Amino acid sequence: MTILSIDSGIERTGYAIFKDKKYVTSALIKTSKEKSTEIRLEEIYSKLKEVFKKYQPDVMVLEQLLFFKNQKTFIRVAQAQGIVMLLAAQNKIKVEFLTPLQIKQIVTGYGQADKKSVQKMIRLTTGIKLTQDDEADAVACGLAFNILN
Amino acid sequence: MTILSIDSGIERTGYAIFKDKKYVTSALIKTSKEKSTEIRLEEIYSKLKEVFKKYQPDVMVLEQLLFFKNQKTFIRVAQAQGIVMLLAAQNKIKVEFLTPLQIKQIVTGYGQADKKSVQKMIRLTTGIKLTQDDEADAVACGLAFNILN
Repeated sequence: MTILSIDSGIERTGYAIFKDKKYVTSALIKTSKEKSTEIRLEEIYSKLKEVFKKYQPDVMVLEQLLFFKNQKTFIRVAQAQGIVMLLAAQNKIKVEFLTPLQIKQIVTGYGQADKKSVQKMIRLTTGIKLTQDDEADAVACGLAFNILN
Repeated sequence: MTILSIDSGIERTGYAIFKDKKYVTSALIKTSKEKSTEIRLEEIYSKLKEVFKKYQPDVMVLEQLLFFKNQKTFIRVAQAQGIVMLLAAQNKIKVEFLTPLQIKQIVTGYGQADKKSVQKMIRLTTGIKLTQDDEADAVACGLAFNILN
């Protein structure tokens, strides 16, 4: 079974691929601030479409959105998540959600863990050194899903 | 010039088409509560894709999202708006935003107008009787855009 975990955002969308619970790859899709939101959404959509084509995931795992202070950023994160979910439906795969608390709890043993601790646990369990937050978040999301299932 | 104005939501998405400032058509896309959010997003996407094909709009007009109390609903509205904006980018047209206050102010002359007053003004200015809120909101959004431009 191949899983695709995604941490979506308008500026940086991280994704990770796991096959039979083993880490395969992960990356970060970046879009330019100079472009309109709709163009950036289209870029994320096109790049993830290629990921679908290449890895043919069986399930998508996302982090449940929680409200945060910056309203403009929050709306864009939700818009980006919408197009990610659209891709899942177009490829006829299910979307599973984990809360940030669940992910941290499962990956580090502590629900309030900071990003550094999450990245350290990823390094210890998979041997991969990730330094980019959103990519690491996508990997953590996939790892947590693998442990839970 | 053809404009497509949309009031997007996961349960009901209203849209309206205006050509050279004249009302052409409007409708409501409904999705079932029984289905997953991603399937519902895909249904909205597919139906709006047909609207694009049929009317080939030159510009898309949307209502700027404002935070409201129901968090779950708000996230879904933003997710639906994301896929609507994706369609604009895929069809290489621009997205313009109006705030709810602007729309009410322009259509009824009063920024705090209720839905009934908006529908009454639509009937008076276009002769069309709309009784479904989200369809009327899309028409109001298009009307306001036409008056502004």
